[in-house]
Amino acid sequence: MYSDRIRLPSLLEKIMSADEAAALIQDGMTVGMSGFTRAGEAKAVPLALAKLATSSPRKISLVTGASLGNDLDKKLTEAGALARRMPFQVDNTLRKAINEGKVLFVDQHLSETVEQMRSKQIKAPDIAVIEAVAITEEGHIVPTTSVGNSASFVAEAKQVIVEINLAHNLNLEGLHDIYIPAARPGRGPVPLINVDDRIGTKAIPVDPAKIAAVVICDTPDSPSTVTPPDDETQAIADHLIAFLEREVAAGRLTKSLLPLQAGIGSIANAVMCGLLKSDFSGLTMYSEVLQDSTFELIDAGKMDFASGCSMTLSEECGKRVFGNMEKYKDKLVLRPQEISNLPEIARRLGIIGVNTALEFDIYGNVNSTHVGGTKMMNGIGGSGDFARNAHTSIFVTKSIAKGGAISSVVPMVGHVDHCEHDVDVVVTEQGLADLRGLAPRERARAIIDNCVHPDYRAALNDYFERACAKGGQTPHILREALEWHINLEERGSMLAKG
Amino acid sequence: MYSDRIRLPSLLEKIMSADEAAALIQDGMTVGMSGFTRAGEAKAVPLALAKLATSSPRKISLVTGASLGNDLDKKLTEAGALARRMPFQVDNTLRKAINEGKVLFVDQHLSETVEQMRSKQIKAPDIAVIEAVAITEEGHIVPTTSVGNSASFVAEAKQVIVEINLAHNLNLEGLHDIYIPAARPGRGPVPLINVDDRIGTKAIPVDPAKIAAVVICDTPDSPSTVTPPDDETQAIADHLIAFLEREVAAGRLTKSLLPLQAGIGSIANAVMCGLLKSDFSGLTMYSEVLQDSTFELIDAGKMDFASGCSMTLSEECGKRVFGNMEKYKDKLVLRPQEISNLPEIARRLGIIGVNTALEFDIYGNVNSTHVGGTKMMNGIGGSGDFARNAHTSIFVTKSIAKGGAISSVVPMVGHVDHCEHDVDVVVTEQGLADLRGLAPRERARAIIDNCVHPDYRAALNDYFERACAKGGQTPHILREALEWHINLEERGSMLAKG
Repeated sequence: MYSDRIRLPSLLEKIMSADEAAALIQDGMTVGMSGFTRAGEAKAVPLALAKLATSSPRKISLVTGASLGNDLDKKLTEAGALARRMPFQVDNTLRKAINEGKVLFVDQHLSETVEQMRSKQIKAPDIAVIEAVAITEEGHIVPTTSVGNSASFVAEAKQVIVEINLAHNLNLEGLHDIYIPAARPGRGPVPLINVDDRIGTKAIPVDPAKIAAVVICDTPDSPSTVTPPDDETQAIADHLIAFLEREVAAGRLTKSLLPLQAGIGSIANAVMCGLLKSDFSGLTMYSEVLQDSTFELIDAGKMDFASGCSMTLSEECGKRVFGNMEKYKDKLVLRPQEISNLPEIARRLGIIGVNTALEFDIYGNVNSTHVGGTKMMNGIGGSGDFARNAHTSIFVTKSIAKGGAISSVVPMVGHVDHCEHDVDVVVTEQGLADLRGLAPRERARAIIDNCVHPDYRAALNDYFERACAKGGQTPHILREALEWHINLEERGSMLAKG
Repeated sequence: MYSDRIRLPSLLEKIMSADEAAALIQDGMTVGMSGFTRAGEAKAVPLALAKLATSSPRKISLVTGASLGNDLDKKLTEAGALARRMPFQVDNTLRKAINEGKVLFVDQHLSETVEQMRSKQIKAPDIAVIEAVAITEEGHIVPTTSVGNSASFVAEAKQVIVEINLAHNLNLEGLHDIYIPAARPGRGPVPLINVDDRIGTKAIPVDPAKIAAVVICDTPDSPSTVTPPDDETQAIADHLIAFLEREVAAGRLTKSLLPLQAGIGSIANAVMCGLLKSDFSGLTMYSEVLQDSTFELIDAGKMDFASGCSMTLSEECGKRVFGNMEKYKDKLVLRPQEISNLPEIARRLGIIGVNTALEFDIYGNVNSTHVGGTKMMNGIGGSGDFARNAHTSIFVTKSIAKGGAISSVVPMVGHVDHCEHDVDVVVTEQGLADLRGLAPRERARAIIDNCVHPDYRAALNDYFERACAKGGQTPHILREALEWHINLEERGSMLAKG
């Protein structure tokens, strides 16, 4: 039994229940788990750990690739099992605990977590818990729908728990390309030159003696929660595609563009869907998460190849893709997030990066993470890895939120994740501002004229003009710079009067 | 005459006066000039241009490597010759014009300017003006004390003016390593693996037909203005060296450390000088600017090799180094700033980056550029190229300025150049805060306890505690977050009461 999934016979003896495996996780341990954007997370052991922690309290530092599905962050938080969490999350319950200071959250560039572990600057996992479709004859681990940080967690951890998830089809095998940069000093270039280059192995290498437990489970990934395009996201997509068409017309890009990177979420997904109806062809992706839109572009013959570190699909798209993996396999690769997000590669390839802003200010500084300057939403994710190193770094958002109580374009952002140097283009449903080569005062003019919702335009214009009268490279009136956020906090709307 | 300096005979016919060459520069042109941190800038033609612009008005976009010496930015500003300036400057007169909005300043990561030109996202130079020690038999240009952006300016410009500066010794020839990354798509890895690797050519390749003028001049570089260590900078150096010693003791570094990068300025210079008395050896540098301290470390046998893109030395150190170039030549290389600052290389080598902050906040966000959140000081320079990609990203500053009216540690910085994700360690003369792996609330505790001047500690503690009571991942009281800056602006001191 399970010999097609666990091909090194000695490891069949390591099969145990999730409860037994979870008991290996002690209070105070650092645990590295698979999982990236609700794809490929270990499922049975974290659930058993949450149960165990309720009766036998233990708090861990949980490090993952990115967000987990199946409400695992919720359940672990409710069980009081999380002391620390990094580098990304999207769960409501955990988010609340983070913002209350009950769980310490370390928000990191997603390419950097395992680099810091490798150089012993942050603690390596005591235990790695990795979801797999199979274990090879050599005892190596074949990941599922994400690679995330799993390969480096396995390399750095003292012990490894493998979850064989029968809900994943064995046909995922061969999809992955596992490459870990060498330690420093002495590291060479990462030898990836084309989006479809394979530079590593198809499974995660590990000394089988390190595998302490094998757990069988049969729970699917949570489906994607991305919503279909609406009028605003469609307008954003239209502005962006018109911009790309102008770039082609100006000879700065060809009709296959450059490798596309799109952050997760409904806006970026709408932008990618917009490419379906465009004249571009021979497109490629070099991104983190492959969403429904990636497969729609492949199916439509618009996209030749997509490289990611996870696949997060809707139920319907998942059926189509996972049920026909052989059709997609030569057009796909999943890499460790350190490689999918590596600055070296993003710059070498010259990606076109499309990421979602929570808000941006009139000078093009972007807040991706903190509501009202203080409360964590999800984390910076890979946006910083990509934005700084992109050929063209694009941020998208709807111009207003909460029925107009919030303008996504503000005098000064309450928190900066991407400074103006890293932001080339900003887009809302109102329009697009091309900021390349502009000084801050010119950037402000372009943003106010093109991106701001009409309800807020006069107020921003007024702020900017009075700020310019005071002077400075980046004119501000410090007494008013954060007033819109204060209004929102105190009166429920950015333009409310006292 | 000049045949040792101009070895392609046909170019001897292009010799003309600086005034004649400057007349090639028309109103509205974009001009790319050599020069990085007051080293190796073209000197005669910009001066002639300033004179010309006074009688025959013309405004240009001036793009350089970084800052210019010999008061050239001052003279060009006074002549009204600058419409736009990028990517860095340090001149008082120009700074004033920038902050008044009279000159538009585009502040860029120094590795990115020519990347954006190459991809036609910003305008390429109409004319490049490049200082040289010589022109080779092939007509190629041998730079002087900096490489900066010169190689790419020459490649992208329609016409080239070469200034042969007799004040530079011919023995500089052979010091440079010129490498320009290929266009995208299709670029391969930059094949630099060790600090002392040479990957390019010793002169800047150019079609001699593009050389429109050769101007002879005899003006030395301006000497460095770096001041010797004082009690505070010495204390900063001591804290930092003790930290590095602890890293070695913990097995995270060896006694040759990793390649060092140090921003220009007195604090970073003091830190580097501090290494003289340390037990480290076999040190290397992979940095932008090589300052006096680099040569003191080489002379003391502490440093084996230094790679930079310019040499900015005091008069005394300059005599020693330039008078004995043969002694240093096998320990030095000057590269284009795109290569000295390339994220790919900084991360591959795993540099230890030491850069100067204007101020940082309790969460470790760093402002490198804007006084009071609005007024440009110099520019971000290479600090962002290095900080994000460093093995260890360190920012240093004195804890107070202006006799105590300013605390360099504030509740919220008025401008963010480096977000908390990119800042591992902060140091003042008060002490060092190691922020690696910490959540924001822990970062605040470490910074307040270790780095703040005693005069400001109670006030920051009070702010932080009241902010925590409000909650959030990054607790702030928005009404007070910028109050210290407002106090300074309105009352001359950060803690003044209304």
